[in-house]
Amino acid sequence: MDSVILINPFAVPAGEPAGEQFLAGWRAAADVMRRQEGFISTALHASLDPAAHFQFVNVGRWASAEHFQRALRAPEFQQGAAGNPYPNFPSLYRVIAE
Amino acid sequence: MDSVILINPFAVPAGEPAGEQFLAGWRAAADVMRRQEGFISTALHASLDPAAHFQFVNVGRWASAEHFQRALRAPEFQQGAAGNPYPNFPSLYRVIAE
Repeated sequence: MDSVILINPFAVPAGEPAGEQFLAGWRAAADVMRRQEGFISTALHASLDPAAHFQFVNVGRWASAEHFQRALRAPEFQQGAAGNPYPNFPSLYRVIAE
Repeated sequence: MDSVILINPFAVPAGEPAGEQFLAGWRAAADVMRRQEGFISTALHASLDPAAHFQFVNVGRWASAEHFQRALRAPEFQQGAAGNPYPNFPSLYRVIAE
C-alpha cells in the first residue's frame, strides 16, 4: 500500500475551555480535509492523562504525500481551517516495524 | 472496545547513526512489551521528512491502561529496555472523533 500516515501531536492545555475550542477547530479542519482528493481517514486521539504533553494527537491516512501537500494548499483550507493556536508537529509517516 | 492506544513521539535526530541506534532500542523494548499481559499490537512509524521534529512515533494498543502501567513496571522492562536516550512523550489515548 502506497498510502501515508499523518500524525500530528497538539500541545493543547488540559481541560476547558481549551479542549472544546480545539475540538471545534479540529472538526472544521477535518470537514475541509475530507473533501480533498486523496483523503482516506482521520482520527482524533484524546489523552487519558491531563498531565500529558500532547492532549490531542490527530492520526490520518492519505493516498500519497503529494495528495496531502496539495490539500494543505487548498484555498478553502488556507482561508479558514489552517489556523491553529496550539503548537503542533505534523509529519507524514510510514510503518517500518511491528 | 475498552482498549487504549499508546502514542509515543520520539525526538530522534534524522539520519544515522541515531536512526539505527533508536531502532535497535525500540526492537528490544517491543520484544519485552509483546510478552506482557494486555499487549495487543505495536507499530513504529518513521517520518518521511528528515526535518520533522519527531522522526519516530510508536503507536500501540493495550487491553487497558492498567495493563500498560503494569507492563512499564515489569522487571525485565525496567532492567534493560526502559532506557531511551531521546526525548519522548508517551501517553495513552482514546479516539474521540473521526
